[in-house]
Amino acid sequence: MAISNIENVNIEAIAACVPKTVINNYEFGKELYGDKLNSLINSTGMVQRHVCGDESITTLDLCVKSANALFESFSISPDKIGAIVFVTLTPDSLMPNNASSAQALLKIPGNIPCFDINHACSGYIYGLWVSSLVARSIGKRVLLLDGDTNSLYVSPLDKSTAILFGDAGTATILNPEGNFSKWAFDFKTDGSLRKFLQIPGLGFREKISHGSLEYQKYADGSQRRRIDMEMDGAVVFNYVVSDVYQYLRAFMDEIETVPQDYAYAVFHQANAFMLRQLARKLGFAPSQVPMSMGKYGNTSSASIPLNICSELRNQLGSSDSKRLLLSGFGAGFAYGAVDLEISNLKSFDIIEY
Amino acid sequence: MAISNIENVNIEAIAACVPKTVINNYEFGKELYGDKLNSLINSTGMVQRHVCGDESITTLDLCVKSANALFESFSISPDKIGAIVFVTLTPDSLMPNNASSAQALLKIPGNIPCFDINHACSGYIYGLWVSSLVARSIGKRVLLLDGDTNSLYVSPLDKSTAILFGDAGTATILNPEGNFSKWAFDFKTDGSLRKFLQIPGLGFREKISHGSLEYQKYADGSQRRRIDMEMDGAVVFNYVVSDVYQYLRAFMDEIETVPQDYAYAVFHQANAFMLRQLARKLGFAPSQVPMSMGKYGNTSSASIPLNICSELRNQLGSSDSKRLLLSGFGAGFAYGAVDLEISNLKSFDIIEY
Repeated sequence: MAISNIENVNIEAIAACVPKTVINNYEFGKELYGDKLNSLINSTGMVQRHVCGDESITTLDLCVKSANALFESFSISPDKIGAIVFVTLTPDSLMPNNASSAQALLKIPGNIPCFDINHACSGYIYGLWVSSLVARSIGKRVLLLDGDTNSLYVSPLDKSTAILFGDAGTATILNPEGNFSKWAFDFKTDGSLRKFLQIPGLGFREKISHGSLEYQKYADGSQRRRIDMEMDGAVVFNYVVSDVYQYLRAFMDEIETVPQDYAYAVFHQANAFMLRQLARKLGFAPSQVPMSMGKYGNTSSASIPLNICSELRNQLGSSDSKRLLLSGFGAGFAYGAVDLEISNLKSFDIIEY
Repeated sequence: MAISNIENVNIEAIAACVPKTVINNYEFGKELYGDKLNSLINSTGMVQRHVCGDESITTLDLCVKSANALFESFSISPDKIGAIVFVTLTPDSLMPNNASSAQALLKIPGNIPCFDINHACSGYIYGLWVSSLVARSIGKRVLLLDGDTNSLYVSPLDKSTAILFGDAGTATILNPEGNFSKWAFDFKTDGSLRKFLQIPGLGFREKISHGSLEYQKYADGSQRRRIDMEMDGAVVFNYVVSDVYQYLRAFMDEIETVPQDYAYAVFHQANAFMLRQLARKLGFAPSQVPMSMGKYGNTSSASIPLNICSELRNQLGSSDSKRLLLSGFGAGFAYGAVDLEISNLKSFDIIEY
């Protein structure tokens, strides 16, 4: 474990935006899951999700909406932004990247670096880290856009994944001006597990063909395309409750903290049952671990900032600084954690697009 | 312009790998270009290109091959690597990212961050910048993998692009140990031009459909799919010889350098005619501007490290430090430049896969 410490960067503002179309899983899942639906919703915590549906809404739209809302609500001029970092695995196009498009759409003066980071559920921790390094280097605010339209690569006929994922786009402004507490970041990667959570046919290993777009049937009755996500739920479950647990245990040991040091632990909103187990094993009280997947589902790398806007915006808006443990984990397999403090956070209700 | 300065990072080693399949443009382009072929090859400088062809080779394979060659040739143990940054727009899959796969394939211990940056022709400058920031933060070597299999998204029937692009994967090791000169990075983005160089149908704005995979005919007789690149050559030409020129002029003014301060200017290998104009206007002698697109084509973000391995490895291997201006430019539209020094570079001939 090699902690990366960063001093004097602050999370100034966070906004989150979801599509207005809501899927109620009690309705949606009747046919696919039959008798097992209620217990599945109870254990996963995924009651409903916001999805793009038939609207031609993308991650870029949701993130741009969030950023514009921050600029307007808090009188932050776009020309105060010194870089754009866009975390997504669902860009409008592989060329150009979303960050370049966001620069134009947000009317941010172009004398700045703009780049995308591709990461899944651990992406927000990566985004915060890289954005903090950039903010310290350039001495200006960084706009971190982070979102995914997960519903566009999850098959509605795949029992492993159908009710889990929602869409969201967020905007976070990092500010390197002022004296703020030291943050501690750490990451881990286990690429040997990568095949257990992947989109096998959306990239350049398997060339996209007409066959990639056809639904195929699997042994459990599920159907999905090669350009849809496939997940081995048992491997992911074990990863979260065992590997991620041990990882976070080691991280807190390394930085010499205990659960009682934190106001909140904000975890990637993977699944309520898994998170409750993770929190209990680590020693966090349920009240320390806010959850919003019941309203928004698993929104991949957007789930941490979305969860903050949904559950903690009032608490973090006060001048009384709160210490937080944030952790994202998922495809890669990737682990990321950060110990940081937030105060005077500028935020507001989740926006609907 | 907001220069990002970085001190005490060194480019320790670079390797580059291309597929063994060679396309000779004099043969390949006969039917598509007819009488105009010879002058087109003369002006662009694109004589031949290495491409994946029918082999199932990906960017990941080419970059892993490059990295392994560095580890083996220079006795650099994988456990000395503290992070992996993978610059590509042609990953094996959008989930997981290539960096996570590279961690497993290269047998690099997993207690490290691994992430992908999506950028096109300016990507190596972004990769060097972010990798340098990471290296300074963690105090360990960073493995920067950078490559693209451009031939997989360029239509062989599109007159604007058919003969231009080759495939390559590179590996660069950045080392933060030692006392090295100060580097100066700068970036610029003009997202308003993004539609003039894009892959319109490979992403989530246009959902991928059977229609996306069909070749469509265009007014000039070209054919391409929506998942292929489309380029407005006139806009790109003007961008390079006018906008990029002015950008680099302003960059050198800002950091107070003149062409004579540099041993070499290593530009993205977009097109020989454009680069000669760019170099002449800036005041660089032809001998200062190495070109290798005649052998490898435009390899997108890999072109700068590939060009260094191809044309400068002996010169940069000496203990006599050389000052270089590197600049990448392309889709976004994106500009990136860095002023740096290299000495004792570990490198070798381009590898064929």
